[in-house]
Parts: sequence; C-alpha cells; structure tokens
Amino acid sequence: MAQFMDVHHGMKGITADQLLEAHNADLAIEEDEHVHFERAWADPASGEVYCLSEAPSAEAVQRIHERAGHRADEIHEVSLIV
Amino acid sequence: MAQFMDVHHGMKGITADQLLEAHNADLAIEEDEHVHFERAWADPASGEVYCLSEAPSAEAVQRIHERAGHRADEIHEVSLIV
Repeated sequence: MAQFMDVHHGMKGITADQLLEAHNADLAIEEDEHVHFERAWADPASGEVYCLSEAPSAEAVQRIHERAGHRADEIHEVSLIV
Repeated sequence: MAQFMDVHHGMKGITADQLLEAHNADLAIEEDEHVHFERAWADPASGEVYCLSEAPSAEAVQRIHERAGHRADEIHEVSLIV
C-alpha cells in the first residue's frame, strides 16, 4: 500500500456539505479497490480540492473517484512524508 | 488562523533527506510569522510537493517558504476539511 494525493480542479464554490457528500460517496465504495480516503481539503475560492488516500495504486484511487462521480485531475504517489 | 495547502512544482528526484531538511528550515523560522507547517508530502517522480500549514495568511506562509529558500508555486486556503 502507498499514499496518494489527488487533486481536483475547477470546484469553485464547493460547500462543506458538497465536500462531505463527495467524501462519503468515496468511503461507501472504497473497500472494493482496497483504497482508504483519509482526508480531503477544499479551497472554494480557487476551486482546488486535495484528497489524501492509502491505496494499492493510483488507478485504484481513480476507479473509486470515477465511480463516485468525481474523476481526479491529478493523482500523485507521495512516497515521502514528513 | 486558517489552514493552507501549498504546492511546489518541479521537485523531481527530491529525496527523503532533502524533504526533511526543507521542512526543518521552515520549522526553524515559522514562529516569526505565526505559521506552523504541519506536514509535507512529496512525489519524487512527478516533482510535486504539498505542504499543509496553519497560518494567519497565505502571505505569511510564503514569507517563511521564501526565507527558507523554497518559494511555493501555489498557496490555497483550505477552509473546508473532511
């Protein structure tokens, strides 16, 4: 398992409820791909959303995000953490 | 105080030691701007580095990063967190 940071652009105006709903949609199906979404951060002003996950691959992260209805624009394996 | 995610591009090949050294350089002076860098994640393959901080402003975050020798390419106030 590895850690991934994925990024969604263009989410300007996202609300707390929308972020929670999107996160919960991921959590509901993440086990199908052995992914766990740990946390998500959103900036409604710029529309950037960051999701931190533990997963077997970037492809597994994307499959969950796609099925939940919000494909990631970037997925990076963050192998270094301090 | 608010939370910020900042992004550094172009750090391909960054090592664990370099990430730790950069993070420690921030920690050494962060109090001057009432900033606290909580965590940093790096993907040596794509060269993306993400830093999560608590700070009074994006400008305060940037001032610490600049003095530490690594200006951020993007700084986003992440007002929503799940």
